[in-house]
Amino acid sequence: MAGAAGTGAADTLVEAALRGDRLALARILTAVESRTAVGEAALRRLYPLAGRAHIVGVTGPPGSGKSTLVAALTGELRRAGRSVGVIAVDPSSPITGGALLGDRVRMQIHAQDDDVFIRSMAARGHAGGLAPTSGAAAAVLDGVGFDTVLVETVGTGQSEVEVAAAADTTIVLEAPEMGDEVQAIKAGLLEVADIVVVNKGDRPGAQRTAGQLRAMLVAVPRVGRGSAAADGATGGAGGAAGERPRPTAPEVLVTTATTGAGVPELLAVLDRRRAADHDGRRNAARRTRAAAQVWSIVGERMRADLEAPALLEATTATLLAVAEHRLDPFAAADRLLASLRRR
Amino acid sequence: MAGAAGTGAADTLVEAALRGDRLALARILTAVESRTAVGEAALRRLYPLAGRAHIVGVTGPPGSGKSTLVAALTGELRRAGRSVGVIAVDPSSPITGGALLGDRVRMQIHAQDDDVFIRSMAARGHAGGLAPTSGAAAAVLDGVGFDTVLVETVGTGQSEVEVAAAADTTIVLEAPEMGDEVQAIKAGLLEVADIVVVNKGDRPGAQRTAGQLRAMLVAVPRVGRGSAAADGATGGAGGAAGERPRPTAPEVLVTTATTGAGVPELLAVLDRRRAADHDGRRNAARRTRAAAQVWSIVGERMRADLEAPALLEATTATLLAVAEHRLDPFAAADRLLASLRRR
Repeated sequence: MAGAAGTGAADTLVEAALRGDRLALARILTAVESRTAVGEAALRRLYPLAGRAHIVGVTGPPGSGKSTLVAALTGELRRAGRSVGVIAVDPSSPITGGALLGDRVRMQIHAQDDDVFIRSMAARGHAGGLAPTSGAAAAVLDGVGFDTVLVETVGTGQSEVEVAAAADTTIVLEAPEMGDEVQAIKAGLLEVADIVVVNKGDRPGAQRTAGQLRAMLVAVPRVGRGSAAADGATGGAGGAAGERPRPTAPEVLVTTATTGAGVPELLAVLDRRRAADHDGRRNAARRTRAAAQVWSIVGERMRADLEAPALLEATTATLLAVAEHRLDPFAAADRLLASLRRR
Repeated sequence: MAGAAGTGAADTLVEAALRGDRLALARILTAVESRTAVGEAALRRLYPLAGRAHIVGVTGPPGSGKSTLVAALTGELRRAGRSVGVIAVDPSSPITGGALLGDRVRMQIHAQDDDVFIRSMAARGHAGGLAPTSGAAAAVLDGVGFDTVLVETVGTGQSEVEVAAAADTTIVLEAPEMGDEVQAIKAGLLEVADIVVVNKGDRPGAQRTAGQLRAMLVAVPRVGRGSAAADGATGGAGGAAGERPRPTAPEVLVTTATTGAGVPELLAVLDRRRAADHDGRRNAARRTRAAAQVWSIVGERMRADLEAPALLEATTATLLAVAEHRLDPFAAADRLLASLRRR
C-alpha cells in the first residue's frame, strides 16, 4: 500500500461512514480487505477512534451452529439498544461462493437494521503470511462506533490462534454430538476459549457434554497468547502479550440458538468480562492484535520494496534459484535483505 | 534462527539421517519445526538434495477419511517398492493432544517399515505470519531421499491455499454425504484440487457425488497460485507463480480407502501427473513453495533484528502505542522499518 495516496478519497469515505453511511462503510471495508491505498488511509483515520468496542470471536467446528448463535446474540444486543457489527469469515470461496451466505437466513431480519452491519469476508487472504484482515475490519467497525463486533470463523484447529488474536473475548461453540475427528479438533479450540458454549442445548446429551467440558477445562491451559504462539505473528514483542497460563477455567454455558434459550445468560457473561477484564485478557488481546497487524504491515512493506522495479529482477532470480534447489531459502532471504540494505 | 550456529550438530544429524537413521531424521524435523539454529543448518544442508520427491497434499473436510486414504496410498506405494514420508498436520493440540494420532491405527502397520517415515506436526505455528513448517518438513524428507511425501491436513476452506502451496499435487477428498456447512466449504477446497477423490465409495451416492463433482469442476477455476493468492506469501514474486486459469478440470476418482478399492487407480493418476507435468503445475508449485519459504524467513530475520537487544525497547514501546490506539499500525510499521535502516 502506498502512503499518502488515497487520503482524499479515504477522508470522504470515513466522514460519510461516521455519519452512518453504510455504503461508505462497505467501501472502506472492501478497500481494507484488498489492501489498497484508500484502505490504508481510511484505517489510519479510524484507528485512533477505535478501541472502545467489545470484539467477540465466535468459533467452533462446522455444524455447531455459529451463524445461528451470532444471529441470536445480535438480536439480544439489539433488544438492549446496542449496535452490532458482524464479520463472518466465509469459508466458501469468494469466486464460487460470493459475499452472501445463503444459510444465514436468520441474519436477514437484522440486515435492514441501521444499527447492525454485516460483513462477509473471504478467508483466502489469511493463508501464509498476511495478518488476518478480519482484525483490520474489526478495527474499522470499532472506529465507526459499533458497540460490539462479532467475528465468526470456522474453527478446526488450524485457525484458532488467529481467532484468538483478533478478539477481546473468544467464544468456542460445541455441539452435543460430534464425529471422531472433530473431537480431536476440540482440544485445540478449547485452548483459546474464554467462554465455551454447548449449543443445540435441546438435543439429548447437551447438559452431559457441558459437564464433561467443565471437568476437562480445569486441566487445559489457556493459550493463543502464550509461549506456543510466541514465534507467530500473534506473539507480542518481548513477550508483551504474556506467557502466563489461564488464571481461571472458562465458563461453560448451554444455549439453544434457534430458540434463543441461554442467549441472555451468554450476553451477561460477555458483559461481565467486558466490565471487569478480571484476568487482564483484554489488554493482552489488544497487544497481541496490535503486534500481529504491525508485523504483517512490516512484512508487506519490505516485500513491496523487494518487488519494486529496481529490485524485482534480482528478487525473481533469487526465488527461482530456490525453486530449482540451487540456493537454499535461508541464503536467499539473506541475499534479499542485503539487497534492501544496499539501496 | 542464528546463521552459522548449530552447523556442527546439524552436519552430524544430516549425515546420520542420510544413512537411514530415523532418530536423527526425527530430531532434524523437531529442530526445523521449532526453528532452531540446528534446524536451519540441517535444512540448508538438505535443501540442495531435495527436489526429487513427489510431494502430494491430501486434504478434505473432517470425516472424509484422509488418514485412511493416506494409509492405503502408503501401502500401495510400498507394494511398488517405493519409500514414503508422511506428514500429518495434527489438528489436535500439541499440548493436550500430543504427537501420536490415536485414530491412525491403520498407519501403525507401516510404522515398523524402514521405508516409511511418519511425522505428526502441530498446526499451531501456521497461524498468522509464518510459512507453513510443513513445507520445510517436506523438503527435509525429500532431501533424505523419500520417493513420495504425503502431506495430510484438515481442509475447511481456511487453509486450502496453504495446502496447495506445499504440494506438487493436491488431492481433495470428499465423502458422499456431508452437512450443509461442509458443502459451503467444498467450493473453496475444490479450487485447489488437482485430483478429487470421493472416498467411502461403498456408501450409497458415491458415484452420484462423483458425477456431480465432474459436472461442477468444469466450471471451477484452479486457484491457489493465481491472482487471488498473489498478495499472500503463496504468490511468487512478480507473478512468477502464474496467474493462468486451470487448463483442465481435475480428475475425479472414487475410492474406498478402508478396503483399498480405487487406490491403485489413484496412484496411477499420481504417477501420470508426476511423469508428465502436462500443465506446468509442478514447476509452478515449486516456485510458489520456494517463494513462501523465503518470504517467511525474510520476515523472521527482520523481526529478530527488531527484537534484538538494541531495538527491543523501542519496538515494544511502538507496539504498545498501537495497542493503546495512540499510533496506527501503518505509522508503527514505518517507524520500525526506519529504526532498522538507521542501524
